Amino acid sequence: MGQQEHAVHYKRDKEGILERLRKVEGQVRGLQRMIEEDRYCVDILTQVAAVRAALDKVGLMLLEGHTRGCVARAIRENHGDEAIQELMDVVQKFLK
Amino acid sequence: MGQQEHAVHYKRDKEGILERLRKVEGQVRGLQRMIEEDRYCVDILTQVAAVRAALDKVGLMLLEGHTRGCVARAIRENHGDEAIQELMDVVQKFLK
Amino acid sequence: MGQQEHAVHYKRDKEGILERLRKVEGQVRGLQRMIEEDRYCVDILTQVAAVRAALDKVGLMLLEGHTRGCVARAIRENHGDEAIQELMDVVQKFLK
Amino acid sequence: MGQQEHAVHYKRDKEGILERLRKVEGQVRGLQRMIEEDRYCVDILTQVAAVRAALDKVGLMLLEGHTRGCVARAIRENHGDEAIQELMDVVQKFLK
Repeated sequence: MGQQEHAVHYKRDKEGILERLRKVEGQVRGLQRMIEEDRYCVDILTQVAAVRAALDKVGLMLLEGHTRGCVARAIRENHGDEAIQELMDVVQKFLK
Repeated sequence: MGQQEHAVHYKRDKEGILERLRKVEGQVRGLQRMIEEDRYCVDILTQVAAVRAALDKVGLMLLEGHTRGCVARAIRENHGDEAIQELMDVVQKFLK
Repeated sequence: MGQQEHAVHYKRDKEGILERLRKVEGQVRGLQRMIEEDRYCVDILTQVAAVRAALDKVGLMLLEGHTRGCVARAIRENHGDEAIQELMDVVQKFLK
Repeated sequence: MGQQEHAVHYKRDKEGILERLRKVEGQVRGLQRMIEEDRYCVDILTQVAAVRAALDKVGLMLLEGHTRGCVARAIRENHGDEAIQELMDVVQKFLK
């Protein structure tokens, strides 16, 4: 599949996803500061859990864009089997 | 509890944890590049899952340091109940 | 949607899923026995994690059947938007 | 460690845990009925997620009992290192 073609899947949310990832990057730097300043470990752990939740949200947005884009098109073009298998494999990675 | 006191919990691993967090920061920037370059969403999702696993590893290292440090000391000083409750609360946040 | 219609989604795997669920039921009874016999808690916890993994496998099989069935048909019939939203909602429940 | 000795860890909650596990067993049988009756897959998936959450709650109760019992005693008796390592290994199994 060409790059231009699959790009459309998350184009609608592209800026929103980038903004979330920049925020996640800032949170990860914040975690480094907390460690450097010897902050209380439970506070750091709570923040690690928050970063993970933020990442999961990005994952879900990408998953939705991918399903609405690539997967839906593959189904309409009658070659959805492989696309659905690939989707399930990636969902499984997130469950682990 | 004084800052100096609880700092010891993850001191042993402090540099190792910081290094891992710097790597996570780089991975999150890599994700932003993948989005900007319109890379294939399944590849991005696979990378999001990898970042999450790296964060979980940091969480586990902090959890272990906290248990060996704060929690163990609280138990030895006969006021472990509150420390264990707090530990369970933070484990629960990670299960979600 | 009629019951007969959506039944087809996991029909192919219906007996396989039922067999797995019967095995999960047996594992949950095994957990009760372990508790009654005062078995070592780490062994019980390891078994709880195994049951959870078995349940996740059932969840993934149902998710795949649902996507290949309901969701794919809705997409082909040009009303996939709602089906994909519902799919994402259920994936999110599994991530939590 | 003797069986009688570690039994105390979750004794306090023993009946509560057994009751929850009996409820989980009933939920798993309910899932089998839903499959047999060809119920809508999203409803079944929602129920699978509920069973998983119920199992996680049992896991947390056992984890807390184990920490307050075995782990705390091992720490008080100055051989906590191994007990904490074992605790972290089991927490890691739940994160996966």
